[in-house]
Amino acid sequence: MQHFTSVSQLTKEEIYSLLEMAEALKENPLPLSKQIFVANLFYEPSTRTKMSFTVAERKLGMEVLDFHQESSSATKGESLYDTAKTFEAIGADMLVIRHSSDQWIEELQHGLSIPILNAGAGKAEHPTQCMLDLLTIYQEFGSFQGLQITIAGDIKHSRVAKSNAEALTRLGANVAFSAAPEFIDESLPIPYISMDEAVHKSDVMMLLRIQHERHGNEGDYAEYLERYGLTKEREQQMLSHAIIMHPAPVNRGIEIDSSLVECERSRIFKQMNNGVYIRMAIMKKILGEWGKLNEITTEKRQKAIVSI
Amino acid sequence: MQHFTSVSQLTKEEIYSLLEMAEALKENPLPLSKQIFVANLFYEPSTRTKMSFTVAERKLGMEVLDFHQESSSATKGESLYDTAKTFEAIGADMLVIRHSSDQWIEELQHGLSIPILNAGAGKAEHPTQCMLDLLTIYQEFGSFQGLQITIAGDIKHSRVAKSNAEALTRLGANVAFSAAPEFIDESLPIPYISMDEAVHKSDVMMLLRIQHERHGNEGDYAEYLERYGLTKEREQQMLSHAIIMHPAPVNRGIEIDSSLVECERSRIFKQMNNGVYIRMAIMKKILGEWGKLNEITTEKRQKAIVSI
Amino acid sequence: MQHFTSVSQLTKEEIYSLLEMAEALKENPLPLSKQIFVANLFYEPSTRTKMSFTVAERKLGMEVLDFHQESSSATKGESLYDTAKTFEAIGADMLVIRHSSDQWIEELQHGLSIPILNAGAGKAEHPTQCMLDLLTIYQEFGSFQGLQITIAGDIKHSRVAKSNAEALTRLGANVAFSAAPEFIDESLPIPYISMDEAVHKSDVMMLLRIQHERHGNEGDYAEYLERYGLTKEREQQMLSHAIIMHPAPVNRGIEIDSSLVECERSRIFKQMNNGVYIRMAIMKKILGEWGKLNEITTEKRQKAIVSI
Repeated sequence: MQHFTSVSQLTKEEIYSLLEMAEALKENPLPLSKQIFVANLFYEPSTRTKMSFTVAERKLGMEVLDFHQESSSATKGESLYDTAKTFEAIGADMLVIRHSSDQWIEELQHGLSIPILNAGAGKAEHPTQCMLDLLTIYQEFGSFQGLQITIAGDIKHSRVAKSNAEALTRLGANVAFSAAPEFIDESLPIPYISMDEAVHKSDVMMLLRIQHERHGNEGDYAEYLERYGLTKEREQQMLSHAIIMHPAPVNRGIEIDSSLVECERSRIFKQMNNGVYIRMAIMKKILGEWGKLNEITTEKRQKAIVSI
Repeated sequence: MQHFTSVSQLTKEEIYSLLEMAEALKENPLPLSKQIFVANLFYEPSTRTKMSFTVAERKLGMEVLDFHQESSSATKGESLYDTAKTFEAIGADMLVIRHSSDQWIEELQHGLSIPILNAGAGKAEHPTQCMLDLLTIYQEFGSFQGLQITIAGDIKHSRVAKSNAEALTRLGANVAFSAAPEFIDESLPIPYISMDEAVHKSDVMMLLRIQHERHGNEGDYAEYLERYGLTKEREQQMLSHAIIMHPAPVNRGIEIDSSLVECERSRIFKQMNNGVYIRMAIMKKILGEWGKLNEITTEKRQKAIVSI
Repeated sequence: MQHFTSVSQLTKEEIYSLLEMAEALKENPLPLSKQIFVANLFYEPSTRTKMSFTVAERKLGMEVLDFHQESSSATKGESLYDTAKTFEAIGADMLVIRHSSDQWIEELQHGLSIPILNAGAGKAEHPTQCMLDLLTIYQEFGSFQGLQITIAGDIKHSRVAKSNAEALTRLGANVAFSAAPEFIDESLPIPYISMDEAVHKSDVMMLLRIQHERHGNEGDYAEYLERYGLTKEREQQMLSHAIIMHPAPVNRGIEIDSSLVECERSRIFKQMNNGVYIRMAIMKKILGEWGKLNEITTEKRQKAIVSI
C-alpha cells in the first residue's frame, strides 16, 4: 500500500497480517536499516495519538520532525497541501497527519510522492485507532467470529464508531450500538440496544468519548452516567470474561464511572500500549521494510483466518 | 530510590554521592545501555530546567518525549494523572514533571509503576534546583561545614528557599535569610540579617528571583535594588573569595545589578551548567544504572563526609 | 568564520566553496564525529526554515534542542541575550536564531563563545535563504556571470531582496527589480522594470512574498496578480530556459498564479530541498568539520571562479 488512510482499504488478510506483525514487533522492534525522516503534522490537540506515533517512530529508529502549527507558517495562512509539499521537499520520507477537515486525504494523496498516514481526519476516520482496537480484541479472544460487541456513546457524531462497526462486522463480530436519543444515527444497519441489555450480553463494551470540544455546547452531563454510561452497577452485570474499552481521553464520571477506568476488566491503558505496536506495523508495511517479518505466519494467525 | 521528589528524602551520604557522581559524569557521560524513553511533562513555562533535563537525557542516550500542554489532550480537560498514566502506557520509562500544583506528587506516585522526577511542584519544591545549588557550592568550597550562606529575596513565597535552607543546615552550613519586610516568613528557625550585614560575612550570596508571574501584582520595584538587592556597592563589600548565586531567570536591575550577572564572583551560568550533570546523576540513580560509577569514592568525597 | 550572520561577510571564493560543499553533502552527509548540541531559537513562526535546519542538523547527526518561546522563560520576560547565554551554559555548541529584531546579532555575537547562525533577523537579513537561492541558480546555470535576474515584489520592506541583489551583482549577474509603486525603494542602484519587460528577458524570475503579517494591513490584493504578479499569460512570455523562484510560503493567486507553483519552470520546492544542504554546508564550516570535503575543488567550481 502507498498510503494508509482507512481500514476499509485493507483486506481481511491484510488486517490479520498487521495484527500479527504488531505482536511480533513487541518482542523485537527491528529498527529500520537507514535514516528515515517522518513528519508528524498534527493540526488538532493530541497526547495519545501523537506520542504513540512518536514512540513507534523512535522504536523503529526514525528521525521525527515535530510540527507545531502555532509556531509554523500556518499562522501566515499556508495550507495543509503546501505544508505537506514543503516537508516532502526538505526530506520527509513519510507524513503522519491529523487535521480537522474530513477531506484532506483526497486533496493530498495525489499531489505527494511520499506516503501519508491518516492519524485522524475530522469526524470521518481514525484508522490507527480502529486497528489498535482490533488488536486489543484479537489479543483477548484470538478471533472476532461470533463476538458480541457493543459500541456505546455518541454514535451520531462519530464516524469512528461507524468504521469500527464496519470493520468488526466484516471480521465476523455481532455489533450493536447503544446511545442516548440525541446521539442515535440510523444510517448503518446496526441494531440499537440499551446499556442494561448491552452489559448482560456483550463480550466487549466499547465506550466512546463525549466530545465536548467538537459539539461546542457543554450541556448538562450530570445524569448522563446514570442513564447511558457505564456505572459500577452495570459493570457488575457484565459477563465474567467481558472487557471494557475506551479510546481515551476518558471523561471520568460521564461515560464511565471513574473507578472503572483502572478496574480489572478495563483494557483502556492496554489499548494505548497496543497503539504503539500497531502503528509500528503499519509504518513498516508502508515503508516496505517487512524483511523477515513478512514471512511470519504463526499458527494463531492461520487459525484466525481459517475461522473467518 | 524509586521516585525523586525531594532533597529531604536523601541521606547526607546520598547527597554527597550524587554530587560526586555529577562530577564524574562531566568527564564521562556513560550513556545508558538500552533504549530508554523519558517524557518531560512541563505544565509551566521553563527554559533552563526543561532544556537542562533534555541535554542531560540526550547525553545519557535517552529518547525524549516532549509534551506540549497547549497542543495536548490537556486542552480537552485530561488530568495530570491520566496524562501520566498515558505516557506510562505508551512506553515511557520515567516521567519528569513540573506542575503548578503543590500536591501532584502525592496524587501520582502511588498510581504509577514508573519513576517520577520532580522538576518543580508549585511553590513547594524544586529539588533538582536545590541539588545543583549544592553542587555549585561543593565545587567551590569542597565542603559545607561552617560556610556562611545568605539566601536573599522573597523567602515568604519560596519553599525552595526553605528547602535549600534545610538541606544546607543539615550539611553543616550556617544559613541566614535576608528579605524585604513583605517577603519575611518566620516559620523556620533561620535568622534574618540585612543585605549590608550579609555581604560582609557571607561565603555565598544566594539570591532569589522576584516572581512577578506568581504574585500577580507587578508592584513598584524601582527602589528594590537599592534597599534589598545586590548593588555594585554591596558587591564591593563581599569577602574576597565569596560567590554570587541565582537560580535565574534573573530580573536584571531588581534583585541584582545587571553588570554583576556575569562578574567574576557570579556562578549563575556555572549553576546552569551544573544542572545538567546533577540531573544526569539523579536519573542514573533512579534508573539503577550506576555500574562502575557506584564504586567511585574519591578522596575528596571521603574527606567531605568525614568533615560532617 | 566564527558566526554566520550575513552573505556579505563571505568572499566570492567562500560562496562558491559553500555551494560546492552543499552539492557534495547531498551525496554524502558525512555526519559529525562527536555529539554536538545545537539549539534552534525561533522567535517568529517558521515551517520551512526551522524544519530545514532540523533536517540538516539531524543529517549531520547533531542533537537538536527545540526552543518554544510560548512555553519558555521568555514569558517571564527573559531577554534573547540571557536565553542565549543559558543555552550556552547548559551545553549548546551552536545557536540558530530567528528573531524579529534587526539588531540582535550585534547584541549577541560579542557576549557568546559559541557560534551563532542567523536564521532571520527582522526585516534585515536572511542569509541562509540567500545562499539557497544562490545554490538553486548555480545548479541551473553553473555560473552567475551575465545572468539576467529580476527580483519582483515588495522590495521596499525586504532587505532580503536587497542583500540578494547585492550578492548576485557581486557574482556577476545583471539584477533588476520589479514592484508596485508602493513597494519601490530607490536606495540601491538597481533599475526597475515592468513585469512584462521582466518576463521577456529574465533567466530567473525571483518572486517575493507579500508579507501581510508584517505590514499589518491586509489591503486589497484582488488586482495585484494582474498588475504586478506572475500570471499564466506572463509565464508564457518567459524565455524557454527561464526559471521561477519564490522563498515561500507562496500567496497563491496574489504574487503568482496558483497553477504555476508546481509548473515545470518552478524551482520553488527545489529551493526548499537545497536549503537543507546549504545549511549543512554552513554548519560544517562553522564547526570547522570540513575534513576531506575541504579539499574538494571540482572542475565545475574552478570554471565558475575563473569566469568571474
